[in-house]
Amino acid sequence: MNGKVKVLLNGYGVIGKRVADAVALQDDMELVGVADVVSDWRVKMAQRKGYTVYCSISDPKRTEAMKEAGINVAGTLEDLLRQGAVDVVIDCAPAGFGVKNKEALYDKYGVKAIFEGGEKHETANLSFVAQCNYNEALEKAEGGHRYCRIVSCNTTAACRIFHALYSHFKVKRARMVLVRRATDPVKGDTGGIMNTVVPSHLPSHHAPDVKTVIHDAIPDLYSAAVKGSHTMYHFHFYDVIFDQTITREDVINALRNEPRLTFVNSKDGVIGLAAIIEISRDIGLPRGDIYTIPIWEDFITVIGGNEVLIAAACPNENDVIPENVDAIRALTLIEKDANRSIQKTNEALKIPKVLY
Amino acid sequence: MNGKVKVLLNGYGVIGKRVADAVALQDDMELVGVADVVSDWRVKMAQRKGYTVYCSISDPKRTEAMKEAGINVAGTLEDLLRQGAVDVVIDCAPAGFGVKNKEALYDKYGVKAIFEGGEKHETANLSFVAQCNYNEALEKAEGGHRYCRIVSCNTTAACRIFHALYSHFKVKRARMVLVRRATDPVKGDTGGIMNTVVPSHLPSHHAPDVKTVIHDAIPDLYSAAVKGSHTMYHFHFYDVIFDQTITREDVINALRNEPRLTFVNSKDGVIGLAAIIEISRDIGLPRGDIYTIPIWEDFITVIGGNEVLIAAACPNENDVIPENVDAIRALTLIEKDANRSIQKTNEALKIPKVLY
Amino acid sequence: MNGKVKVLLNGYGVIGKRVADAVALQDDMELVGVADVVSDWRVKMAQRKGYTVYCSISDPKRTEAMKEAGINVAGTLEDLLRQGAVDVVIDCAPAGFGVKNKEALYDKYGVKAIFEGGEKHETANLSFVAQCNYNEALEKAEGGHRYCRIVSCNTTAACRIFHALYSHFKVKRARMVLVRRATDPVKGDTGGIMNTVVPSHLPSHHAPDVKTVIHDAIPDLYSAAVKGSHTMYHFHFYDVIFDQTITREDVINALRNEPRLTFVNSKDGVIGLAAIIEISRDIGLPRGDIYTIPIWEDFITVIGGNEVLIAAACPNENDVIPENVDAIRALTLIEKDANRSIQKTNEALKIPKVLY
Amino acid sequence: MNGKVKVLLNGYGVIGKRVADAVALQDDMELVGVADVVSDWRVKMAQRKGYTVYCSISDPKRTEAMKEAGINVAGTLEDLLRQGAVDVVIDCAPAGFGVKNKEALYDKYGVKAIFEGGEKHETANLSFVAQCNYNEALEKAEGGHRYCRIVSCNTTAACRIFHALYSHFKVKRARMVLVRRATDPVKGDTGGIMNTVVPSHLPSHHAPDVKTVIHDAIPDLYSAAVKGSHTMYHFHFYDVIFDQTITREDVINALRNEPRLTFVNSKDGVIGLAAIIEISRDIGLPRGDIYTIPIWEDFITVIGGNEVLIAAACPNENDVIPENVDAIRALTLIEKDANRSIQKTNEALKIPKVLY
Repeated sequence: MNGKVKVLLNGYGVIGKRVADAVALQDDMELVGVADVVSDWRVKMAQRKGYTVYCSISDPKRTEAMKEAGINVAGTLEDLLRQGAVDVVIDCAPAGFGVKNKEALYDKYGVKAIFEGGEKHETANLSFVAQCNYNEALEKAEGGHRYCRIVSCNTTAACRIFHALYSHFKVKRARMVLVRRATDPVKGDTGGIMNTVVPSHLPSHHAPDVKTVIHDAIPDLYSAAVKGSHTMYHFHFYDVIFDQTITREDVINALRNEPRLTFVNSKDGVIGLAAIIEISRDIGLPRGDIYTIPIWEDFITVIGGNEVLIAAACPNENDVIPENVDAIRALTLIEKDANRSIQKTNEALKIPKVLY
Repeated sequence: MNGKVKVLLNGYGVIGKRVADAVALQDDMELVGVADVVSDWRVKMAQRKGYTVYCSISDPKRTEAMKEAGINVAGTLEDLLRQGAVDVVIDCAPAGFGVKNKEALYDKYGVKAIFEGGEKHETANLSFVAQCNYNEALEKAEGGHRYCRIVSCNTTAACRIFHALYSHFKVKRARMVLVRRATDPVKGDTGGIMNTVVPSHLPSHHAPDVKTVIHDAIPDLYSAAVKGSHTMYHFHFYDVIFDQTITREDVINALRNEPRLTFVNSKDGVIGLAAIIEISRDIGLPRGDIYTIPIWEDFITVIGGNEVLIAAACPNENDVIPENVDAIRALTLIEKDANRSIQKTNEALKIPKVLY
Repeated sequence: MNGKVKVLLNGYGVIGKRVADAVALQDDMELVGVADVVSDWRVKMAQRKGYTVYCSISDPKRTEAMKEAGINVAGTLEDLLRQGAVDVVIDCAPAGFGVKNKEALYDKYGVKAIFEGGEKHETANLSFVAQCNYNEALEKAEGGHRYCRIVSCNTTAACRIFHALYSHFKVKRARMVLVRRATDPVKGDTGGIMNTVVPSHLPSHHAPDVKTVIHDAIPDLYSAAVKGSHTMYHFHFYDVIFDQTITREDVINALRNEPRLTFVNSKDGVIGLAAIIEISRDIGLPRGDIYTIPIWEDFITVIGGNEVLIAAACPNENDVIPENVDAIRALTLIEKDANRSIQKTNEALKIPKVLY
Repeated sequence: MNGKVKVLLNGYGVIGKRVADAVALQDDMELVGVADVVSDWRVKMAQRKGYTVYCSISDPKRTEAMKEAGINVAGTLEDLLRQGAVDVVIDCAPAGFGVKNKEALYDKYGVKAIFEGGEKHETANLSFVAQCNYNEALEKAEGGHRYCRIVSCNTTAACRIFHALYSHFKVKRARMVLVRRATDPVKGDTGGIMNTVVPSHLPSHHAPDVKTVIHDAIPDLYSAAVKGSHTMYHFHFYDVIFDQTITREDVINALRNEPRLTFVNSKDGVIGLAAIIEISRDIGLPRGDIYTIPIWEDFITVIGGNEVLIAAACPNENDVIPENVDAIRALTLIEKDANRSIQKTNEALKIPKVLY
């Protein structure tokens, strides 16, 4: 691969638009364009930002409809792939469309592709969180593997926290309880839940999903989840038991030194998600994104010398964005050192290590 | 004590108005009246229901203000106590006022009093959930003890579920995670939280509060809690480990046979709190109250042969109402059999064993 | 028609289940049964209440599915109609299904039918609010007309308020602004909007819908509407201009004397919908229903001698219930006096004239 | 005044922190620092941004408390004023504190001060919206007047829209209905309303407040308002009657040519506040601010040739920010042309004229 990696973003939604911006900020990547199928303000906003817009599907009627709505469609995604103009597609289409795109397009044109957490592990056979298994991705890519799945925002957050723990201590058992946001803010006009709590099946799919990344690093791992009646940031509780004695100081140090985790403190007035979201906005990055996982430092509690309780917030719209960038580097082998990629991404995105 | 127990309800709020109605339904009790200090629609509603209204505080200005607002105040709470017209006061004043009333009034006039979960255990030195420790209350009452505390809605729900488990199996360890409603519906016009999740300190006070009732029945017990952005029903997750092998069937049977617990099923379309609340309203009891704790039967999950996961809903406005009624019987010794009191209360309140 | 009117309820949802209960309370009607197509807790609840359950559609597979879920299906709606066992069907099927049922069933079997506000005026060619046009319904029924549409909860509330005004004063112009609840509480687990306000098209359909009932009683009538992020009770603002001088006292008297309207007062602490909903629950009718329209008495404001501002709450789940009962009487001609029907219904449902 | 205007921001809250950032972006102003009294994350964030922090009150204990929390307090606000280091204080203290600060500090030290919408008109005797009455502010300032009040976000939005109308057409009468956000997002952890609608008194104070800026430009002006259960952006309905015939095209042109107004379109998928908020975030300005008032272009409706209905969104956290900047220029006489100040501010803040 000569020069910059040519990246095409397919699916300009909540995650896709952020990945597009993030790729455009990297000096070793070039954003070829963004592909979508709708004609509303969302795609007009892509155009306003100067991105070249393609139609995700090859049906000329759809391209025509987008043009009639005032979108300058430069062609179809398939045209681009046929021309070999793309090294990696980031597929941020709605859940379940990724596997269809893979079969219809990415397999056919032999292009590399990165999927998001709405797709199954089997679609990519490689699930990724940079600080956990960048090397696994490198190895697979060196063997010719072309696909990678960025896990969901919740799984990404959990993997980062667990990695801080299992890379320093013998973790025996972990339980997670998630209070999920009901829907993304942008979908609030048409969707969501109201004045309720809605549990997932017990146990939830989050623990098995974490295992697609960390494999057997935590032998006994289960999760439970509910949807809460709010639109931003998931809330996470962790209850982790170790096969050794640990101190609160040990755990705090492990978390502090881990990339893409940060601390907040209820004693500073950060008493809930609303405060963290306001802090996120005050930081000043576009859309109020922070990419990192805030953990309540003063809530970290050690019980009985070998168990720790942790509460964290998961910025669901944006914590996976740096993972997409790192996955491009791993999959294209342009950066063979995990830490260097993470560092490069952190700097390009200005990911804050300290929030306030 | 000859004839019916004379009960005075002090604090006609969310809990108080329900206790008043419940006492009025018992054939071994007489509701002498309700006392409050405000002059708004809430007290006018008490009058509309035919209750005699007293002023909670002895300041004549306050009585005057209530009368000016159109309330027929029959006198003050202190007048009643001085006359010996009351056997038991149920103190449903706002959290923290109970202990003040105790010192100023109940101690002074030697009247029996029942406090609610907003008061500390130490105020009553007896915390109560009928099916767990009716006999403890009886013993103390026989020894002349005059006070009892009904624990909070959350603690009451947890005690019922734990009792079903520890009275059948050897329970080693339990963890609870609560997603609390933010405020009562009636307070929605002026209070609450919005579009957020707010954690309590970790660990939360709920586990220690449970221990005031079940004492050492569960040796290793911790809890975590958040406020969610909804107004009705708390949501509870339980993770319980046994010192023995158990089956899912065992656990279901234990829960099914326990009073004041009931099952719902996501396969019947009961997928969240909103469905349970609608069922509660459809049952047809006043205010949509059900008094019992709905547990998702199909979510009950056994892990590794000795651990069970349980999800439940806690009807925060009303699950403690029958406990108040039973506590009156225990404290006044008019019913010395726990099961008979529970049965009597269940029938008078029409507490449903099956919801649909 | 000899004896009681035989009524079948088709569509046991938010409105349907209330209509069923209301019909069952009338001494001149008999509820033959309720028909639906689903198999979940909702229909099980109908069975729990003792209603005979029918399948709304004639497909035997559907009946079978309901039976498999444990519902004792007594037959199909069509069977009942074929047998002439029903005088009036109340069609509370989801919006748009009523017209299909009319064409497939009610036309075919010549049965009388009452539709709800989700259907168009043209489906029934008679839109109904008892205190506005009971006589119009009588006249049409005497001419052999078999169909009637109960207008939506919002339109019903507006018609009652406007009737109080135009039957006493010369109304020249009215503007309504509605802040609608987003979805019904029962649908909160799966639907709704979150943390937003969503306007309808401007102007909204409510004013034209009001005209299907009050015809030209208000010559210049427009409305605007938004969905708010709450689940119970719509909020209404009215701005009405008269062709004559009026006083605040005049307007208050007109509203006070009108059936199915009631007053609340912010000075009594009734500052928002939450307080009204709590009052509704405290009244003690099933599901907290009140059937009447609360108007803020102290907010009634006269401007410039010929204009009045009014704020009201609309109990969206239940204000149309008495209209369904009255419509049965009008359509079957069993009661030819509007006031007697309204009075009879009010008494059977215990509709409160004063809330507190 | 030589060189840049020296500005001190007092009250680093939702409005204050934005005004600080906006002032820091102007080439004719210098932000001397920000003053506050709290010690939590909010003030730490000011420090993180590089602002010099002062203590708003002169009590040394308070300064000490801030220092103990890790804030480098550079002194007190009063020290600064005594030294003559400040030309203009922007007082963004909580509602009602402005008038106290005026009496205790600004009067005493003869400093110019700008207040926000939480203060009464009488505190400043000059209420300001740049495009409506910049010249009035200039005239008063030339006469030695030192105070100015930026009106509330709602009043500012209304004044901009009304100015577009009354400066082109003869406006006879206007009615506004506001669906206000309940509280700011940052306060969601501790405050707000839940699942309700709460009306203000009828009529609301908004219309009189508008008149403090536009005086008698609209002879017959009334408003009504409710709080809705959402945290961002107010929603506005306008019903305006003219003393002349107007066309939809006329109104659209007038609104389009007015500064700090912009159009959105439901046909582009912008169906509610959530979409507008997402667009705001996508624009990419800090905190997702847009400063301008989005109006639904396709909802603009003309009735009867002389009446128009308009629906708009009011970005409550930030629409007043440019007004603060312009008010500094008017009050200090550094820019005597309203349009030039508005233009300068628009460019410095990058206020978008088109959103997508």
